[in-house]
Amino acid sequence: MSRIAYVNGRYLIHQAAAVHIEDRGYQFADGIYEVFGIHKGKLIGIRGHLDRLAYSLSELSIKNPMSERAIMHIVREIIRRNRIYNGLVYLQITRGIAPRDHAFPNQTSPILVVTGKRTKVSSDEELRSGISVISIPDIRWERVDIKSISLLPNVLGKQLAKETGAYEAWMIDKGGFVTEGTSTNAWIVTEEGELVTRSATNGILNGITRLAVMEVAKEAGIRVVERPFTLKEAKKAREAFITASTTHVKPVTKIDGSSIGNGHIGTITLQLLDGFLKFIENGTDSKNLHPRCRESKKIRHE
Amino acid sequence: MSRIAYVNGRYLIHQAAAVHIEDRGYQFADGIYEVFGIHKGKLIGIRGHLDRLAYSLSELSIKNPMSERAIMHIVREIIRRNRIYNGLVYLQITRGIAPRDHAFPNQTSPILVVTGKRTKVSSDEELRSGISVISIPDIRWERVDIKSISLLPNVLGKQLAKETGAYEAWMIDKGGFVTEGTSTNAWIVTEEGELVTRSATNGILNGITRLAVMEVAKEAGIRVVERPFTLKEAKKAREAFITASTTHVKPVTKIDGSSIGNGHIGTITLQLLDGFLKFIENGTDSKNLHPRCRESKKIRHE
Repeated sequence: MSRIAYVNGRYLIHQAAAVHIEDRGYQFADGIYEVFGIHKGKLIGIRGHLDRLAYSLSELSIKNPMSERAIMHIVREIIRRNRIYNGLVYLQITRGIAPRDHAFPNQTSPILVVTGKRTKVSSDEELRSGISVISIPDIRWERVDIKSISLLPNVLGKQLAKETGAYEAWMIDKGGFVTEGTSTNAWIVTEEGELVTRSATNGILNGITRLAVMEVAKEAGIRVVERPFTLKEAKKAREAFITASTTHVKPVTKIDGSSIGNGHIGTITLQLLDGFLKFIENGTDSKNLHPRCRESKKIRHE
Repeated sequence: MSRIAYVNGRYLIHQAAAVHIEDRGYQFADGIYEVFGIHKGKLIGIRGHLDRLAYSLSELSIKNPMSERAIMHIVREIIRRNRIYNGLVYLQITRGIAPRDHAFPNQTSPILVVTGKRTKVSSDEELRSGISVISIPDIRWERVDIKSISLLPNVLGKQLAKETGAYEAWMIDKGGFVTEGTSTNAWIVTEEGELVTRSATNGILNGITRLAVMEVAKEAGIRVVERPFTLKEAKKAREAFITASTTHVKPVTKIDGSSIGNGHIGTITLQLLDGFLKFIENGTDSKNLHPRCRESKKIRHE
């Protein structure tokens, strides 16, 4: 089976899928993206992703190339054609193709690219295994609330993490506070059992998983506090974890080499991971299921 | 005649020139670029561009795809095939094509794209005509010394300038100092006749034209001071101008609506413009000439 990508109106063999060299995404990082997670046949957080997509486009004055319905049709078609039961759909919209000039072109149409990727279903053990993070200065631009493809600092940060054997890098602002990871949101559980994550201001990207975990926590009676926390506070935290669309809730067991908790997933993190998985498996998004699931009816849907 | 672009080993019809959707330039802004100006058949500042290209690649740990000699062969081939007597060559190198993942891929080869564009030779009147600039906050990332394609804030700034009828936007740092324009360096001439431009730290991109103009100024006995200047100081300056590879030395006659000098090109700016044009026409770069020039011998070369 060939992998299939959607590029500007056509479904193409992934390997041959291309965009013009004067696509503004290629020359100026003038575009935005979303990553939809697919967990056991279920497309996660559709509403959240579509809302953020609309926000990012609007902040950059890029026209949405089509209706939400049409976008979701393509997303589902990519899931179907690539037979994704578990994995992700990557969606990118750039301002369009035009002779190179910084200012917006007068006449151009946005370009939509959608790709899919299969991943295997993680075992409980894999889901619960801890990762290490390092800390790096946050050197990004000031509009990281926009999910733009201007990701070079994130690339450099993630690479630094990889080179030091860590999974993620937490970025530290000028005041010594953690903003977020290069592709994930950052959380801690304090000694007092409070769940702390930075509030969704311009300093971070408001993760869809972040919002869901906040819901899960509130329903479980865990006190959630949205405030910045310092690296020092994080190192002394009882628990720490990261969230992202494809990472779900992932325990952090080391920060800059210091162990967090007892080196294993913490009680609250485990509670949130389990709650989050239940949340997405029982989600209310309709038409969400992979064909395989629809046949087998193994997964409940409303 | 069809416009020709070079893409990763092949010369292609510009309209059909494409890169893969998983080129890291398209998904992460993970690449760098250079713009070579061509003035009346003469390729400007080759050494400077090649040095900066090497610097940008090195700072991002991107392998240079080929030798300087091979790169310049392609640049000249693009000039020849597109019959560029006046205009520019745009060169972009990205980290390569790989399945989407923030960290550097283990195995990938950098992608080189080179395009050319013809522009008409500007008249003296056009060269000397003043432009307006507006001021905007500098919201870019901290490594603007790297000539990366992570240009979204520059795009937004230039668009704001365009919407307000200005040609360029000068970016102001947290301290109230001008860093640079969205695609140009910023200069003023003080009441005391000092030529002032910000020093080439991480706060600005070290322009090739900037370096040449500094040389020209020194030879002309003009005192050059490399230091930050505030917006307030700029508005009270005797003269102001911008520099860039394709803009040369361009007088600024309005900043945020306030007139600079008498609204026309200032004495020192004119001296520098003339000196710079002479500098590039008499430059010492060999093998620089457009075939048309070589035949006509109208332009002196060493």
